[in-house]
Amino acid sequence: MTRLAVVPGDGIGPEVIAQALETVTALRIGIEFDVLDHINAGTFLRTGVALSEEDFTRIAGCDAVLLGAVGDPRVITPAYARGVLLSLRSRLDLYANVRPARLLHDDLSPLRDRANRGIDCVIVRENTEGLYGGSLHRMSGAEVAIDIEVSTARGVRRIVEHAFSLARRGMCMVDKSNAVPSGGALWQRIWRETAADHPNVATYHLFADVAAMRLVADPTEFDVIVTNNSFDDILSDLAAQIAGGLGTAASANVNPDTGFCLCEPVHGSAPDITGTGTANPVGAILSAALLLEHLGYGSEAKAVRSAVDRAVAAGHRTPDLGGSLTTQQAGSAVRAEL
Amino acid sequence: MTRLAVVPGDGIGPEVIAQALETVTALRIGIEFDVLDHINAGTFLRTGVALSEEDFTRIAGCDAVLLGAVGDPRVITPAYARGVLLSLRSRLDLYANVRPARLLHDDLSPLRDRANRGIDCVIVRENTEGLYGGSLHRMSGAEVAIDIEVSTARGVRRIVEHAFSLARRGMCMVDKSNAVPSGGALWQRIWRETAADHPNVATYHLFADVAAMRLVADPTEFDVIVTNNSFDDILSDLAAQIAGGLGTAASANVNPDTGFCLCEPVHGSAPDITGTGTANPVGAILSAALLLEHLGYGSEAKAVRSAVDRAVAAGHRTPDLGGSLTTQQAGSAVRAEL
Ligand SMILES: CC(C)[C@H](C(=O)O)[C@@H](O)C(=O)O
Ligand SMILES: CC(C)[C@H](C(=O)O)[C@@H](O)C(=O)O
Repeated sequence: MTRLAVVPGDGIGPEVIAQALETVTALRIGIEFDVLDHINAGTFLRTGVALSEEDFTRIAGCDAVLLGAVGDPRVITPAYARGVLLSLRSRLDLYANVRPARLLHDDLSPLRDRANRGIDCVIVRENTEGLYGGSLHRMSGAEVAIDIEVSTARGVRRIVEHAFSLARRGMCMVDKSNAVPSGGALWQRIWRETAADHPNVATYHLFADVAAMRLVADPTEFDVIVTNNSFDDILSDLAAQIAGGLGTAASANVNPDTGFCLCEPVHGSAPDITGTGTANPVGAILSAALLLEHLGYGSEAKAVRSAVDRAVAAGHRTPDLGGSLTTQQAGSAVRAEL
Repeated sequence: MTRLAVVPGDGIGPEVIAQALETVTALRIGIEFDVLDHINAGTFLRTGVALSEEDFTRIAGCDAVLLGAVGDPRVITPAYARGVLLSLRSRLDLYANVRPARLLHDDLSPLRDRANRGIDCVIVRENTEGLYGGSLHRMSGAEVAIDIEVSTARGVRRIVEHAFSLARRGMCMVDKSNAVPSGGALWQRIWRETAADHPNVATYHLFADVAAMRLVADPTEFDVIVTNNSFDDILSDLAAQIAGGLGTAASANVNPDTGFCLCEPVHGSAPDITGTGTANPVGAILSAALLLEHLGYGSEAKAVRSAVDRAVAAGHRTPDLGGSLTTQQAGSAVRAEL
C-alpha cells in the first residue's frame, strides 16, 4: 500500500492540505496518510529543532510527501525554512522542482491581450545547488556577507536532462552568463552538450532578466524553461501569477532516479489570511494531482485536474479568484466534479 | 562647459543614441559631446580589449556618460559586458542604479485590469556588489562552478539610504533572507537600522519571488523598491515590461557622493532589429533626460519627459509600441513636441 507522508506545516498549510487529503480520499485508491502535523514554526520556536531525525526517517520511509506551507512571520531568519523544506529537498536529493503554470480559465489571466493569455508551460528548477546550497556562510565582523553559488556539472546535467524529458514544443535555458561567470559558463557548456543530444526539440537561451520580461510580454511562447535555483524561484512565482495567481500553482520536488517526490503548493503560509477560511485549496489539490501522477495514478491525476478546471470554470472560487467560497466549499466543489 | 562622454556601443545602441543626442542638442544648453564610438564588440573581438585605460581616463574626465547598449551575439561570455559596462559601474563606483518604471500611456500596459495599470515606481539597484562583483571565479576540473555573492554593510547602507532619498509614498526592500543566509541577514539588519531613521516613510519587505508576483498583480502598490544587484536586474526588466515594454525604459547609474553618472536605456543591443531602423529611441531619450536632471538641468529634463509623453500619446510610435515610425521619425516627433 502507498504511504504518503503529510506535513501540513504553517499558516494556511493545514487548511488547504485538509482539502487535498479529502480529495485524494474521495478517489478511493487506498493511499495511507502518515500525518506529521507537529512539524511547524511553533515546534521550532519551542524546541529549536526544525525537523527531527525521527521525523526525517519517518518521511523518508514513505513513498512520497505532501507539504502545505513552511514559514511564519516570527521566524524570518532562514534557519527554519532551510531546516524543513530546503533540508528535505537536499537530503532526499529532490533535484528537480517541476512547476507547471497553466491558465485554468481565461478570466483569471492578468494579461490584457487575449492572444497572450493561455500560458501552459513547465518551469524546471534545479533544486539542490545554487545560491541556497552553499556551505560557506560567513560574516567577518558582521560587515561583509558572503554567500556562494554552486553549480556542478552533474547537477546541471541531470536537471537539464530531466527538463528535456518533459519538453513538448521547446526548451528554453535561462542563465545570466553575461554577468555571473563560473556558473554561467558551466550552464552554457552542459546546455549545449545536452541540447545536441535532442536535435528534435527546439531549444533557445535567454538571460534571466529578459526571461522575466518575455513571460509578461507573451507567455504562450514558452513550453519548458530550465534554470537554476534562484532564477527559477522568481520566474516560477511570476509564471504562477500570470497563470492566474499563486493560489492555484502546484509544484513537485522530484528525484527522477529514485522516484521519490515531495509535492507542495507554490504559495506560502499566508499569515494574513490564516484562520479566515478563505485560502484557495486549488494549489494544494493540484499538488496532490502531481503527486498521484508520480505515484503511478495517472488517470486519477487527470480526473482531479479536470475536476478543478470544471469547478473553476463554473465559478466555484475563493476570494483570490474573485469568488466568495470558503476553502472547504471550494474543495467540495472540486470533489463534486470528480 | 559640461562634457558628456558618449558610448553608443553595439547593435541598436548607435541608432538610439543618435536620437538622444539630437534631442539634447535641440535644447541648446551647450553640452559638449565626446563620442567614443570605437568601444564596441567589433573592437573587442579584434583587440581583446573591452575598455582601454586611455578610454577609461577620457570617460572619467567627463562630467557624465550616455551609453547605448553593450552586447553582441558573437560574445556570449561575460568578458565583454563585464569589461565595459560592469567595469565602468565598478571603477566609477556608480553604486546606485536607478530605474524609473512609469507607464507613458494607458494603452501600453500589458495588464488587463485598468485600475492596476498605472505603474509609477523607481527601482533602486545596488550596482557594485552582489553576485556580479565577486572576485573568486574558479572551476576545479571544470566540474564545479563557484560564484560568490558579496554584500558589505557599507554597500547596503549607502544604497538603502539613497533609495530613501527618492521615496515619495513608500519603500519596499526585497531580499531572499529566508534562503540566502549571509546576505539576507545583512540586508535585513541594515534595512531595519536605516528604516528606523525614516519614521515618516511607509516601509515594508518582500521576498524576491513574491515581489515579482506582486509587480504583476498590482504594480501601483510600489513607490520605491530597493534590492541587490541580481534581484533588481530581473525585477527592473519586469517593471519595464509592465510599464509598456523595454523600449521606453531608462536608467541612471549614479554615485550620489561624487555626482558622476552613467545613463543608459534598459534595453540591450537587440541584434534582431539592428539596422532595420525600427528601434525605439524613447529609452535612450529618457536616459538623456535622467542625465540632464543629474547634471542640474531639471527643467530641461522635465521638458523632454513631457515631450515624450505627448508624442507617445499622439501615436508617434515605433513598431514595438504598435506604431510604424522609424527610429528617426519617432525621435523627430519627440523634438517637435519640445
Ligand atoms: C549586460 C548585463 C551584464 C547587464 C546587467 O545585468 O547588469 C544588463 O542586463 C543590465 O541590467 O544593465
Ligand atoms: C521558503 C523558500 C526558502 C522557498 C524557496 O525559495 O525555495 C520558496 O520560496 C519556494 O520557492 O519553494
